[in-house]
Amino acid sequence: MTNDSIHDLIIVGGGPGGLTAGLYASRARIDTVLVEKGAAGGQILVTDWIDNYPGFPEGISGFDLAEKMVAQAQRFGLAITVKTVSGMDLAGEVKTISFDDGQSVRGRAVIIATGARPNRLRAPGEAELTGKGVSYCATCDGPFFRDMDIAVVGGGDTALQEAVYLTKFARTVTVIHRRNEFRAAPIIQEEAKAHGQIRFLLNAEVIGIEGEKEVQALRIRHQDGREETRPFQGVFILIGITPNSEMLPLDLLQNQHGFIVTDCMMQTSLSGVMAIGDIRHGSVRQVVAAAGDGAVAGKTVEQYLDSLHHKK
Amino acid sequence: MTNDSIHDLIIVGGGPGGLTAGLYASRARIDTVLVEKGAAGGQILVTDWIDNYPGFPEGISGFDLAEKMVAQAQRFGLAITVKTVSGMDLAGEVKTISFDDGQSVRGRAVIIATGARPNRLRAPGEAELTGKGVSYCATCDGPFFRDMDIAVVGGGDTALQEAVYLTKFARTVTVIHRRNEFRAAPIIQEEAKAHGQIRFLLNAEVIGIEGEKEVQALRIRHQDGREETRPFQGVFILIGITPNSEMLPLDLLQNQHGFIVTDCMMQTSLSGVMAIGDIRHGSVRQVVAAAGDGAVAGKTVEQYLDSLHHKK
Repeated sequence: MTNDSIHDLIIVGGGPGGLTAGLYASRARIDTVLVEKGAAGGQILVTDWIDNYPGFPEGISGFDLAEKMVAQAQRFGLAITVKTVSGMDLAGEVKTISFDDGQSVRGRAVIIATGARPNRLRAPGEAELTGKGVSYCATCDGPFFRDMDIAVVGGGDTALQEAVYLTKFARTVTVIHRRNEFRAAPIIQEEAKAHGQIRFLLNAEVIGIEGEKEVQALRIRHQDGREETRPFQGVFILIGITPNSEMLPLDLLQNQHGFIVTDCMMQTSLSGVMAIGDIRHGSVRQVVAAAGDGAVAGKTVEQYLDSLHHKK
Repeated sequence: MTNDSIHDLIIVGGGPGGLTAGLYASRARIDTVLVEKGAAGGQILVTDWIDNYPGFPEGISGFDLAEKMVAQAQRFGLAITVKTVSGMDLAGEVKTISFDDGQSVRGRAVIIATGARPNRLRAPGEAELTGKGVSYCATCDGPFFRDMDIAVVGGGDTALQEAVYLTKFARTVTVIHRRNEFRAAPIIQEEAKAHGQIRFLLNAEVIGIEGEKEVQALRIRHQDGREETRPFQGVFILIGITPNSEMLPLDLLQNQHGFIVTDCMMQTSLSGVMAIGDIRHGSVRQVVAAAGDGAVAGKTVEQYLDSLHHKK
């Protein structure tokens, strides 16, 4: 991998955004390498069912959609390399991505598509039941919970806003929060508290998620140490999201939470560096939006590479 | 259609952007009406084959993709109405869309997804051979013309830039322009003129496109009146694009060409009015990008409707 050749484009991250950028770039015959630390597909690989990616009227499993996106990009010649990034030097005209095995790759343009990850409770049963009643995205999965009794874990704006949203589908929504006050803005709290379908369980922690094939109950510990099991058919864990920004260089403009700031053409603060998908500040964290970002970045990269050519 | 009820959302235009916004809004149980003047699907209905919409490794016909997107949005309850818009009043909190039959519909939010149309030569054979060798989009269709001899019609930045781009696929690219000078920026002209695979035919007009099932030749008229038929296997008509902005109100900020100015969340200059897809200034005019815009606007509309609710 370490050699003297300089690629036109390096894409870091192989989720729907990175794969779409790779499809567009490869199809435009831009010499492109996509680097992914695991299997290409990103978060959708572990997404049970995607109902809102346009073009699949009955929905599609995340695994199948990932497989199709990979096959399509590879059909146009996208090279996918499995490596773990250990550093990025993005300031100069030639950018270097270093790997944990000591190797590196160089390119004239870089698209960062490393994504973000929802914060986990780390409760027993959580991983096993993800996609089977455990969800981290109300927009994605809310409609799967019609007329059920579900829980929302969290106390911020997102948790309470999504609790209200989820009442469109669920019969009841119980907000479980480990403190006795919410961090959410007062106006959002008011709306949630005034809602007839929303209940509250404060000073309570979810210490286990139970169920055979699907979520059936939550194990809850109260502040006084008392524990109980309450029946729920689903739980939305909305306790924040962490950008996969650990390897980003300090000279790349990020917001206070580590998401990358871009303009609408996906350009970052560094020339020749684009960012797309969930790592981007302002992302709506939806598969089709990340894919759309990828197409936009593909066009932006074309123009950037052209401008380098004109400078010569 | 004319009645006292006020919908939450009216979407004007049923291409991939409008349909995706409709899918997101309906799935979020927002009371939504999509208005389309013809069959839902937009430009892709007349697009022979789409190779770069992620999720279809072998590509998909535009007709099939449109059908799938319509079915998916309707599955979540999207109401699609076939009407021709004659006017829009978007300034107030309640917005009114009027139709040419004298009826109208009212809504709290509006998403404009009316698209744009490539300018046509209006030459005999052009309509019949669109998608069969006649194209209006190099990014979309360039890779279908590998090792062929093709023509580009036009003299602006886009025509010459795309001529250079198309040399990645085609054997030769002949730029046909009816004047003896190009409008394109000097640096773009230089690059095109220096390119070994690009030829030029100036002071020449394409007056006919010939072929049985696919483009075989162009009928060309020179300035001196002389006419000839030259063999080509494809022709890209890149003589500008016109936004479908005829019915837009004057108080909505548009750029000098009539495309609507938005921020990255698809908000226009008018509160509660979003614009998505090809009608939007800065759009890359790709199906997946329009669909991505639709998802973003769906989320923006949710927030906007929430904010109205909070104001009460």
